[in-house]
Order: sequence, then C-alpha cells, then structure tokens
Amino acid sequence: MAGIRFEKDIDYHNEDDGELTAAEPSTPRSRRLQSFVDEYGTYRPHLSRIDHIKRYLKKQFATFTFLCCLNSVLDKIPLLRCLKEYNIRKNLFGDIIAGIIVAIMHIPQGMAYGVLTTLPPIYGLYVSFFPVIIYMIFGTCPHLSIGTFAVISLMIAQALESVIQPSMSIINNNQTSSTFSNDSDLFLINEKIGTATTLALLVGIVQLILSFLRLGFLAIYLTEPFISGFTTGAALHVFTSQIPLIFDIKAPRGINGAFKLPRFYIKLISLLIHNINLVSTAIGIISIIVLYVAKYLNERYKSKIRIVLPCELILVIIGTITSHFTKLHSKHRVSVVGEIKRGLPSLTVPPLNHWNQLIVPAITIAAVSLSISISMAKMFSRKHGYKVSSNQELLAYGISNVFSSFFQCYPSAGSLSRSVVQEGSGGKTLLIGGFSSIVLGTVIIALTHLFRSLPMTCLAAIIIVNLKGLLFQMKDFMFYFQISLLECILWTMTFVSVLLFDVDIGLYVGMCTSFVINTIRTQKPRFVVLGQVEETGLYKSIVYFPSGHQYSKIKILRFDESLYACNAPFFKRKFYELIDIHLSYSPLISWGEKTQKNHKNEPTYKYVILDCSPFNYIDTVGVKLLIQIFHDLKKRGITLYLSECRLEVRHTFDVMKFYEQTESDTVYVTTHSAVMAARNALNNESVNNDETNELVESQL
Amino acid sequence: MAGIRFEKDIDYHNEDDGELTAAEPSTPRSRRLQSFVDEYGTYRPHLSRIDHIKRYLKKQFATFTFLCCLNSVLDKIPLLRCLKEYNIRKNLFGDIIAGIIVAIMHIPQGMAYGVLTTLPPIYGLYVSFFPVIIYMIFGTCPHLSIGTFAVISLMIAQALESVIQPSMSIINNNQTSSTFSNDSDLFLINEKIGTATTLALLVGIVQLILSFLRLGFLAIYLTEPFISGFTTGAALHVFTSQIPLIFDIKAPRGINGAFKLPRFYIKLISLLIHNINLVSTAIGIISIIVLYVAKYLNERYKSKIRIVLPCELILVIIGTITSHFTKLHSKHRVSVVGEIKRGLPSLTVPPLNHWNQLIVPAITIAAVSLSISISMAKMFSRKHGYKVSSNQELLAYGISNVFSSFFQCYPSAGSLSRSVVQEGSGGKTLLIGGFSSIVLGTVIIALTHLFRSLPMTCLAAIIIVNLKGLLFQMKDFMFYFQISLLECILWTMTFVSVLLFDVDIGLYVGMCTSFVINTIRTQKPRFVVLGQVEETGLYKSIVYFPSGHQYSKIKILRFDESLYACNAPFFKRKFYELIDIHLSYSPLISWGEKTQKNHKNEPTYKYVILDCSPFNYIDTVGVKLLIQIFHDLKKRGITLYLSECRLEVRHTFDVMKFYEQTESDTVYVTTHSAVMAARNALNNESVNNDETNELVESQL
Repeated sequence: MAGIRFEKDIDYHNEDDGELTAAEPSTPRSRRLQSFVDEYGTYRPHLSRIDHIKRYLKKQFATFTFLCCLNSVLDKIPLLRCLKEYNIRKNLFGDIIAGIIVAIMHIPQGMAYGVLTTLPPIYGLYVSFFPVIIYMIFGTCPHLSIGTFAVISLMIAQALESVIQPSMSIINNNQTSSTFSNDSDLFLINEKIGTATTLALLVGIVQLILSFLRLGFLAIYLTEPFISGFTTGAALHVFTSQIPLIFDIKAPRGINGAFKLPRFYIKLISLLIHNINLVSTAIGIISIIVLYVAKYLNERYKSKIRIVLPCELILVIIGTITSHFTKLHSKHRVSVVGEIKRGLPSLTVPPLNHWNQLIVPAITIAAVSLSISISMAKMFSRKHGYKVSSNQELLAYGISNVFSSFFQCYPSAGSLSRSVVQEGSGGKTLLIGGFSSIVLGTVIIALTHLFRSLPMTCLAAIIIVNLKGLLFQMKDFMFYFQISLLECILWTMTFVSVLLFDVDIGLYVGMCTSFVINTIRTQKPRFVVLGQVEETGLYKSIVYFPSGHQYSKIKILRFDESLYACNAPFFKRKFYELIDIHLSYSPLISWGEKTQKNHKNEPTYKYVILDCSPFNYIDTVGVKLLIQIFHDLKKRGITLYLSECRLEVRHTFDVMKFYEQTESDTVYVTTHSAVMAARNALNNESVNNDETNELVESQL
Repeated sequence: MAGIRFEKDIDYHNEDDGELTAAEPSTPRSRRLQSFVDEYGTYRPHLSRIDHIKRYLKKQFATFTFLCCLNSVLDKIPLLRCLKEYNIRKNLFGDIIAGIIVAIMHIPQGMAYGVLTTLPPIYGLYVSFFPVIIYMIFGTCPHLSIGTFAVISLMIAQALESVIQPSMSIINNNQTSSTFSNDSDLFLINEKIGTATTLALLVGIVQLILSFLRLGFLAIYLTEPFISGFTTGAALHVFTSQIPLIFDIKAPRGINGAFKLPRFYIKLISLLIHNINLVSTAIGIISIIVLYVAKYLNERYKSKIRIVLPCELILVIIGTITSHFTKLHSKHRVSVVGEIKRGLPSLTVPPLNHWNQLIVPAITIAAVSLSISISMAKMFSRKHGYKVSSNQELLAYGISNVFSSFFQCYPSAGSLSRSVVQEGSGGKTLLIGGFSSIVLGTVIIALTHLFRSLPMTCLAAIIIVNLKGLLFQMKDFMFYFQISLLECILWTMTFVSVLLFDVDIGLYVGMCTSFVINTIRTQKPRFVVLGQVEETGLYKSIVYFPSGHQYSKIKILRFDESLYACNAPFFKRKFYELIDIHLSYSPLISWGEKTQKNHKNEPTYKYVILDCSPFNYIDTVGVKLLIQIFHDLKKRGITLYLSECRLEVRHTFDVMKFYEQTESDTVYVTTHSAVMAARNALNNESVNNDETNELVESQL
C-alpha cells in the first residue's frame, strides 16, 4: 500500500512529459503552481468586503430564534447555570468551608489594603463584601477572589493624592489651617471617599464599555512577561508604601516624578532618625517574621494537615488582644486602627465632582485590573478545565464596580493571594463568593468595633508578607534572559519604568514595548542557504546539514520570516550578498593586490530559488521588492523562481498583478520541483549552447 | 538520473525497518526529527550571549588595519569617491546644466517656502545655498535636492509660533504695543530667526546622534503607507496656509488643538468677506492656472522638447516686472516681497535661548525630514542602481543642518519636486549641488533686490502648484483599500490624525499605528485543515483542494502564523474547534431534541498532526501552550505530532525542555512522515485490538 503511494509520489515529481503536455507543451505538468492549482484545486472567487459582511449577517440571522436569544441572555448570568447544575452533596460542604476561609482572609487583607488606599480600614471591608456578591452572579471563574488588591489599592492612593492634594491646598489657603484641624480631617476623608467611589464608577463604566464592544480580547496584548514585570515593579512600590507604617512614622508626601522610589527612601531615612517608634517597629518586624514562617510551614505541610491555617486572622486577633491589654496606643503612642463605623454603608450616589481628572486613572486602573484578573482567571481555567470568557469577565467586573460604587466602595480587582487560597481550600462553584459574603456581612455589621485596638503595623506586616509571591517574580527575569532575549527586554523595560517612574507610566511603556517588540522580532530573521539533504526531496540549511547538496549555478534560499515593509531592506541586502552580487563599493584607496571586480563578471548562479514557505503574509512593499529583484536579476542573466507560496501570499500576488509583471512560470509548488525545473533548463541550455557552437562551427 | 534520485526519495520515506532499526527498534529511522538531525545534520553548540559578543569583537579586530580605518574615514566623505571616479567628458556638461536648472527652481521655491515658515523670503534662499554645499560633500544621493521643503517649513512655522507667541505676549504686556510697532516687528523677526537657527542646530544634533548610534535603520519603520498618508495630510495643511496669501489677507492666528483645519476655514471665510484684495486674488488665481498648465505641458512634451522649462522662474520674473511697472503695491495694496537684505549672511551663533522648548519639535522635524529624504534617496537609488546608506545620509543631513545653523538657516530637507527635476535634467553626480550653489550664491550676493516688487501671491501660487504631487497621493488610499486592509488602515489613521490634529501628533499616531498593525496582522491567521493532494506527498488546504485526501482518525492542521503570546488564545480555541472537541457549554434551556453531548464520547480523531512550517518563531507562551495541549489531548486518548519545525522553533523547544516534557517522538521532519507514522501506529493498534479480542475470547 505504502509502496504504491510512493510510486505515485515519483509520478508526481517525474511526470514531465505525460499526456497533458500536448496542452501545455513548454512546461512540465503540475510543477508550476498555476497548473497544480488548476488540476487539483478548486476556484473560489475572492469575496469583496461587502459580500463578506452580507454573508456574516446572513449567518447571524439564521441562528436568530427566540430560544437562542433567551439562552444568550441567560448565559450572561453564569450563576443560573451554576445553580442548575449544582450538586448539593458533592459541592455544598466544600463551598461553605472555602467561603468561610476566604472571608477570614478578607478581614485582615481588606483592612490592610484599605489603609494602603489612605482611606480608613473599614472601606477595605466594604470592597471585600459588595463586589464579591455581584461577581458571584456575573462572573465565570469560581476560584477568582474579587475584592481588594495591593497594586490597585496603590494606584487608587496615587489617584486620590493627585486629585485631593491640589483641592485641599486651595481650601487650606482659604482658611487658617491650624484651627479646624479635626473638621478638616473629616472633610478630607469624606472628600477622599467621594473621589474613590467616583473612581470605582468610572472604572466600572470603562469595563462595561470594553465588554459591550467585545474588546475582552485586548487582554491578550498584556502578555506574561509584561504582567510579570509590571506586577513585580508595582509590588516594590506597595512594599515601599508600607515601610512608614511598620516604623510608625508619617509617610513623606508629595514625592512625584522620576526616581520616586530612591527619593522616597532618602526622605524616609531622615524622618526615621527622629521619629521612629521602637515598640511599633518591634511588633511589625516580629509580625512579619512570625507570619512568614507560619505561612511557609502551612504551605509545606498542607498535604499533611489538610487545612489552611488562617495565619493572618490569628495575627490580627493576637495583635488586637495584646494591644488592648497592654494599652499600646495610649502608653507607647503606637498607631492603631481606631474607632470604626459599624454596619453596612447606606446607598450613596458617587459625587462625580472630580470626574474629569479621574478619567485617565480610571482607564489605567481598569486596564491593570482586567489584565491581572483575567490572566489569573485564565490560569485557573487552564488548570481546572472550565471556560472563562474575557468579555463576560469584563461584564462582571464592570457591573460589580458600578454597583459597589453606590455603597462607598473603591475599585475592586482579583487578588492573587486570596485566589490561590480559594482554589486550595476545596471550593468548586461560584457559590463560594456567596458564603464568603455572608460571613463578611456579619463581621461588618456586628464585629468591627473589636478591631479598634489593632496596631496598624500588623496590617502593614500582612501586606508585606503577602507581597512575597509578587516579589519572587523577580526570578522570571533570569528565566526570560535564558530563553528569549526579546521577552527579557519587555520584562525589564516594564519593570524598570514602573520602578523609576510610576505604575501608570510603566503600564504605557510596557504596552508600547510589547508592540515594538513584535515588530523587532521580524526585523533580521535567519536567511539561510538550502541544500538537498542526501537524495531526499528535502532542502535544509547547509550550515546545520553540511552534507546538503548544492547544485552548481543554482542557489536555493529561504528567508525565515514574512516579507514586509519593515524587513524588506534587510531582505534585499542579504539576498544579493548570498548570491554573490556585491552592491557595495570597492575600497577607495588600495595598494598591492587589485581587488577583483565582480560587478561585470558572469554571475556565479544562473538560477535562484527562493523558498517562500516562511512567508505567512506579504505586503505591497514585499511584492514590489520581489518584482524589482526579478527584473534586476533578469538583467544580470539570472532567473528567479519562487516556491511553496502559501494562499495568503498568492492572494496578494494576484491583487498586485505579480504574474503579469513577472513571468507566469516563476512560482513552483515545491522547492524540489523548482530545482528540477532549473536543472532541466540548465541542461537544455548547455545542449543549446553545444548546438550553437556546432552551428557556428558548421557555418565556419 | 532523476529516476534514481526519486527512488532514493522513496527509500527515505519508506526506510522503516532498515539496518539501523537495531539501535532504535521502536520507531522508523529518519522520520523523527531527532534521528534525522543525528543522521544528516551537524551539531553546532548554541553560543552564549557573551561568546557571541567575543566572536563579533574578534571579527572586528581582525579587519582592523590602518588602510581599513583610513578607507572607512574616507568613505564618510562620498565626494572624494565621486571626484576620484569622475568622468569629465561624460558627466561635466550634464552636471552643470542640471545645477543651473535646479538653482533656477531653488530661487522661487526658496522664497516661497521662506514665506511659509513666516520668515522673510531671503532666508529660504540661504537654506537653498548652505545645506546644498554640505550635502554635496557628505551625501550619497546625487539626485536628492536638499533645501527648503513644504512640510518641514510648515512644521518650522508651527514651532516658531508656539515658542514666540507666548514670549511676545509677555513683551507686549510690558510695553504699550501700539507705539513701537516697527521696532517690535524687527524684534519679532530677529527673535524668529534666532529660534529657527536654534531649531536647525538641534535638528542637526538629533540627526548626528542617530547617525553615530547607527540608527539609520529606524527609517524602515516609516513605511510607504505611513509616509504617503502623512505627507498627503501635511500637504493639505500647507495648502491651507497659502490661501490667505492668495487672497492677500492676514491669516487667522492662534488656532490650535483639535479640528484646526475646519476652524481655520470658518475664521478665514469671515475674514475674507471684509478684507479680500481682488487684484491680488486675481493675480494669484491666474498664476496658479498658468503655472499648472505650463507644468502639465512641460511634463507631457518633455520627451519632445527635451528641456525642463523653468516655469516658476518665468512666473516670478513676469510677476515682478508687472508688479513693478503697474505699481501694484502702492496703488492696489498688493503685498509684495519688499526690501531684501543683500549678500550672504555672516557667521552667527544660534542664540539657544528657547532650546528646551524646541527639543520636541526638533525631534519631530528630524524624524519627518529623515523619513521623507531617505525614502526619496532610496527610491532614486533603486531606479539608478547606486547605493544609499541611511547612516551616511543621516550624517550628511546632520552636518548640513549644524553647519547651516551658523549661517542663519532653518532646518533643511529633501524636496520631492526639485529632486524629480534634478533627476530628469540629466545630472549624474554629486557635483550638481556644487554648480547649483554657485548660481544661487551669485543670486544672493547680487540679484536679490530685483525681486522686491514680486507679489506674495505669486509665491503662494508656486507652493500650491507644487503640492499637486503630494495631494494626488490621495489615490493611494484606493490602492491600499483594494490590496491590503491593514495598510489602508495605517494610511487612513495617519492621514486623518494629521488632518484633524496636527503634523506632529499625526506622526506619533501613525508610528504607533504601524507598530500595532504589525501585531494585529498576526492575530487571527488562517487555520487550515490539510489533505493529501492525490497521491503526492503534498498536503494542502482541503478548502482550496477539495480532492485532498483526509485519513480517518487523523487530522492534519496548519496554523498560518508564528505561535506566540498574542495569538495563543486564538490558536487554542480554533485548534479544539477543528478537532471536534467542544469546550463551550450546551445551551442552558433547550426543549425538543436533546443536544448531543460530545464531551465524554470517543474522540473523532486519534492523531492530530500540526504542520509547523509557518512558525518562524515561537515564544515561551507558545511552547507552554503546545505542551499543555499535548497533555490534554493525551488524556483524551489523542496523540499530537508536530512536523516541519524550523531551526528557530527547535531552538526554543530545546531551551524550554519541550522534549523532556512531552515525548521524544512528537516532532517529525515532514508532514508526510508524521502521517505515515500515525497510519502505522493506527494499523498496529487495530492489530493489537484484534489480538486482545482474541485473547479475551480464548480466555473465555
């Protein structure tokens, strides 16, 4: 069976002078692309753009039934599917346990990140409550823990500072600042909360717009090296922001612009010398060490003890109790959380007064939150085999931000550390969020006042220890350095620009870098000379296959990238170099041996075959260049053959009238057939030459 | 001969159980990539980055001789080579004629573009003189006419306005503006000239830096559709700027920001109603028509009359004489050129006082001037077969701008219209520039005062008629629309952003668009199912080759683009779709027929072969995805084979430890050998199944 197949294979390569040659006497059948397509292919007319649109609409309308519409509306609420397919016996217990564990993590993290946004800690708890409920209804990833997240909290703090600082300075100028200190503090906090909720509303609107425009696919441009570099840099900013809390000093303010971090540290050190609170520092450092060790042990012996220890909550409880009974605040001036409003916030419309200043931060925050959340959701979906839709996720984030903004919440996003716990604690469905919210709601309504003695330094310790994962991404640099230089450059550019400037500038620099890198990647591809490997029909690089056979007067080349405007100049230069045509000048001054002038000599090669298999597309510049090279080579007595052109390339050839401008037998199906055609032509030529010589001789 | 070759070809495909199978009993020889490489290939260790650098330096030092250095220094002065190889009899006459013709074009154009920059017309003549001399020494393209250019002049005017306007308003506030009107005008002009020369110095420095860093290759990012869209949009701005001169009214000033052009026209119309100078308008419109017709006739009958008529100079002379004798200025208040300084400017150091405001415009102007000049030079080099080096061109532009800035010149660039004339008038070498400068120098020293009665409207007419070529690029839109949607988008984005905003914003938007487009292009490539065409070893898309044979339980796929982060999600989705594995959910509500659940069924295919020939590179995300798909398919009882992986891909596979993470026989040399391996395996399986069945039966 296989034997026959291969005999036929010979036929194909060898059917030079078969029965069909009568119709096309000059060239062997099937070798040239056009005849190959004519014989085996089918004619498919190129649809115009309008026909394409018509066909698409027709297809859409064909599936447009009531049931279909209803289903697609219901598909926007994944909770329904979850409830429909819910298996109480299998899932309920796991979901409840996971919900409780995540809620327990939410409490300290919520308060800590609330502090990070420079708002009172209770607002972090709100963000751990409302968005989670909405995400449960509209989200698609059961393991993603929506709520407070370090990088986003930092960006909110920056946005608040940039908006509030100027407006406060105006107010301060208008009134004598010393007298109404307490009132002004209250005013400041109210102003901040209003701004933060406006920001949440705007972020939600941006996400909803992206979702309605079905732009969720944009998340793919936020590639892994970019996200890794970005979050690592941001984590260093978050880490820096927590240091003043550990030492219990007032953070240096108003440091903006380039090289923010080093300037911050310089200012910090001068502040530290005078103001350090040793008790608070001791508590903070002990908390960090204990928490780190506890988490490490927990991680290590997880398989044995089979439960996730709520280390952070234990720290918070111990910290609160210690602080309460040793009167840390009154005796040692350690900053504590202080009096907390009790109960859920009432419905309040975001004030919107700074909305125009907040649009740019809102877009940036929306971009960061979607990039981090969606990449996490995709990671879990890969691991567990459920489907996560970017557009549905965007819808969920959008609705949860818009809804929550009416309940005094700042923008929310998925948190890496909580999500990992949520995944590990055995929950399986979206209901985890519901159970978590029930626990958290109870805490917010009834128990918040218990935390008023909690030292702030404990909260800072929780944030710092949670940054471990993000900071350890630093080793991704080495990974990319070893494997891919361009991805390493992307990582470094993003990381360094986040570090030196700021989170938002880093985002934009990173985005631009990733687009530029996609172009650079195609700039200087390998341009290889091919040789026939032994007696097979395969042509491989003669550098890696030195036994590859090169025929005299035939050069076979392959350019390992699509030919287009940005690499066309490189292609041209290298192409001539490889076929020994020197476009460069001879040296101006030379003595001794005369340099050989190849310019007017007989060309080394009579046939050049370009293997176009790497061309995934070709643009107008590329086609023009090929036409120009074809004619230039013809002038020099060299024939150019192309082989293995793919559909996309052939289509561009068609519309650019390539065949009309060159010759019809330029394109061959395989490199091997092009080589055969060239060898035949060379044989014929030498026969003809002999004949001519004979003729000349006979005429003599 | 060919017959033997093809028999060997069979051998290769068929050598399943040859002599070497003893060593590797399980798999046939040569089919798997690794054994193929082992047999025919050579081992080349991957050099580390440091070794690469070492090798490069060694190579550089090997060629480091005195003669070499001398030659490379001398190569920086292409005039020397030109003089060395100069053929007086062949070239001199043509060069002199071309020099004179171009000088004659320089005079009216220089003055007209001088006006366009809002400086007195004489400064345009300076720019037509000094840079040309320097370019003759350092430039590489004999046909490129350096000097004044419309788009650059417009950008200079904008830069001057943005710098001078604020500083003038401060001065105006300090003194009563009405009294010292004349003094203030003189002051304004001096200020403007100082700023323009500073700008030229900065542009030159930017170009020199680019040249020293050998960044001339950056010009390739300024692709044809971009330059076409950009210059077309800029030409509309230039056109608009000349309209007030035609009607002889004061141009509306201070219009900035978005939608500049429509707002300009609205203001213009309201100004026109009251202030139009009918005499001037009549002269302007007649000049435009006459010049247009004359140029058209000149172009049409060029082959017959064989000389280029200096239409513009004739217009200038006729305009001047008419204006002088009919006293247009004093009688009809037609604006004329007025008194002109005589003689060459003395050496003056650019004042540098606004340098920090001028850096951004300088970078923009440098980018535009290099993109337009280099693309023109490359065009001529293609046509005439001489070599143009981007870095040398940059050096020439840089030196000429820096040098000229000390002689009261504003930034220069190549002009399309003059270059075409310079090419057509028969000159062959760089000396054209020298002869042109001699003529121009004479004019500047002795004849400028003759032009004082020349109406400004004539100069405007010259600019407008010269814009024809740039404005006619509008039809490039249709060209790109028909051929390539993405290039059309690039053209449109650049054009529209230049038109709606401004030249510099358009430049940046266009640049960003071209990078984004290079990414978008690779987003959703064709993903085709392949079938074996008749009995050949070729596998083609079954859509275009419907006779292509598909084997049962084997699916052959090809993804027509390199697999990397940005198209990995699309790859994954489409891949599963094509092998009939449904990752999407069944509809939530359904009645009537139950939808078939494919999830737990036997997979349709047992072997999936991915033809990797279109992969020019693969990044870490792509390799991870392939590994993940490999394992996922294995779980479902499907085997994944890859074929035709190119060197670049194999290298990434190596460093990412692809083979360790999958199985060693995953990668095959050709698609055909992978298919054969799959078919063999299927045959063996069915035999084994039969045996198992027999075994079971016998046990029964």
